[in-house]
Amino acid sequence: MKILEEALKGSIRSLGKLISFIENESPGFLDILKSIYPLTGKAKIIGITGPPGVGKSTLVSRLAKIYLEKNDTVGILAVDPSSPISGGSLLGDRIRMSHLFPSSNIFVRSLSSRGTLGGISQATMNVARVLDAAGYNIIIIETVGVGQAEVEIIHVADTAVVVLAAGFGDEIQALKAGLMEVADIFVVNKADLPDTSKYVNTIEKILLKSSSKKSWTPPIVKTIALTGQGCDELVKKIDEHYEFCKENESLINEKRKRQLREIKRLVEQKIKEEIEVFFEREYSLEEIINNDQQRNKGPYVIAEEVLNAFWKSQQRSKPLKS
Amino acid sequence: MKILEEALKGSIRSLGKLISFIENESPGFLDILKSIYPLTGKAKIIGITGPPGVGKSTLVSRLAKIYLEKNDTVGILAVDPSSPISGGSLLGDRIRMSHLFPSSNIFVRSLSSRGTLGGISQATMNVARVLDAAGYNIIIIETVGVGQAEVEIIHVADTAVVVLAAGFGDEIQALKAGLMEVADIFVVNKADLPDTSKYVNTIEKILLKSSSKKSWTPPIVKTIALTGQGCDELVKKIDEHYEFCKENESLINEKRKRQLREIKRLVEQKIKEEIEVFFEREYSLEEIINNDQQRNKGPYVIAEEVLNAFWKSQQRSKPLKS
Repeated sequence: MKILEEALKGSIRSLGKLISFIENESPGFLDILKSIYPLTGKAKIIGITGPPGVGKSTLVSRLAKIYLEKNDTVGILAVDPSSPISGGSLLGDRIRMSHLFPSSNIFVRSLSSRGTLGGISQATMNVARVLDAAGYNIIIIETVGVGQAEVEIIHVADTAVVVLAAGFGDEIQALKAGLMEVADIFVVNKADLPDTSKYVNTIEKILLKSSSKKSWTPPIVKTIALTGQGCDELVKKIDEHYEFCKENESLINEKRKRQLREIKRLVEQKIKEEIEVFFEREYSLEEIINNDQQRNKGPYVIAEEVLNAFWKSQQRSKPLKS
Repeated sequence: MKILEEALKGSIRSLGKLISFIENESPGFLDILKSIYPLTGKAKIIGITGPPGVGKSTLVSRLAKIYLEKNDTVGILAVDPSSPISGGSLLGDRIRMSHLFPSSNIFVRSLSSRGTLGGISQATMNVARVLDAAGYNIIIIETVGVGQAEVEIIHVADTAVVVLAAGFGDEIQALKAGLMEVADIFVVNKADLPDTSKYVNTIEKILLKSSSKKSWTPPIVKTIALTGQGCDELVKKIDEHYEFCKENESLINEKRKRQLREIKRLVEQKIKEEIEVFFEREYSLEEIINNDQQRNKGPYVIAEEVLNAFWKSQQRSKPLKS
């Protein structure tokens, strides 16, 4: 595949096309991911999440700048799982930001691929692998929002940074969505706000209650992303966490569990694809649903019948080799 | 099954147990749903959604009261897709509310079954069917939040009511999440707020832009749920919409499409179940993930191998009848 070759050689244009191909799950995308997999595993993946308005984007640009100055190559994925609209304006902001660094050392991309067969976190993982294979050694995944989807996306990262700010996005909301559990590092941004110390204390108390059994105690870093204050410290903590993970047994186990979940997701996705093909080629659900007598059987009976027909079709197309 | 019989006969206690059984997708739950399906289809399902703080719960209790006074039986499902914690406090509130109506004509339940195989909207559909079969002829589904998950849940309802209030939850957020498209009826609650008329105008403008091709124009009902003002009018509009749907060709088609999606969801869920069984009985993913050489193949190759093994196992257990 030509765009694959070119993307791996450094063509930004081809990389963009390749990512669209993967993001849209175009036919053959899993084969591409399979073929580039041996090239991956070199990047450090950093997840940034938190409620709206805490300054995540500004923080992400700061981090990117610090890494770029250290001669790292940086890929940024901004993921908005709740948005059905592809992140037009977001992407615009990011591109403007990337103009600060006109080199090919930075690549910025917005993802909003809900409705994909494997789910948004798998799509994010897939695209991150493309960036990894293309040689970006720092990948920053920024997710917008505080829901369950964001928590799942953040599991793709090696290090999850939860960004909060005094007075923004109540802690209860973050707690509810499981953000507190997922955090490897807390950032209290906008640290010039008057209630910052009180807010840091609140988080410390919550951490004391919850993290006793964890081997890694999430540090809390105060930043003012607007001026860059505290951002070097944040990068230091991210690096520390990354090193810690490499050696810690329980974290390695956690990573394996995530790999396991990924394999399950991929298996399910493959089967969903085969079902779609089955519906298109052999089995007209529309016919059933438009036939009163058929429809009156109800969804549970129909689903059973469909499944039986599907198994039979699979057996015909994939005969057992004895 | 004893609890099924008792629940259908009117035992609230058994109904609660039966719903837990269905909600937790305990083994055999699909068979129960299959068996009660012929008893369903009599209930009117009303979905209530909107941003936090607009007064959805108060409105739901008002509606319940109006229906109860008309000798309807009312089941209420409060669904919070973002919450990993089963809705303890929420449920408490609901139970307190239900004490206002000590009769067996009302049943209140909180659902937060994320992580189910079929997804939260299928779980909601399943539980609504149980209530339907148990004889509740009005089912109110209240969803908390404004994300994509809520929009999907609301598709379970015959009539979707989107509750807004001047100054609460910006319209843009609601628009983004597709709430505006899903609404059959708009409620502007807290109609005593000063900006209400302006707010109603804004919604009207958005509707004018978007609903030209719809056969049903969503009415906007102003309510003050706290005092009950406007709630009778809302019930009238709900009934009108319900009647309209029965006859309108395009809405019937839409309903069929939803049924089609449900069947697909159920098929996928069944297959996921079979994969889980396969992993438990025949195929140890843990072994692979703990073996360095195996793991290094990467998730895409492993998923392919797993799938091949799964097909073979299915063929052995479900031989083709010739």
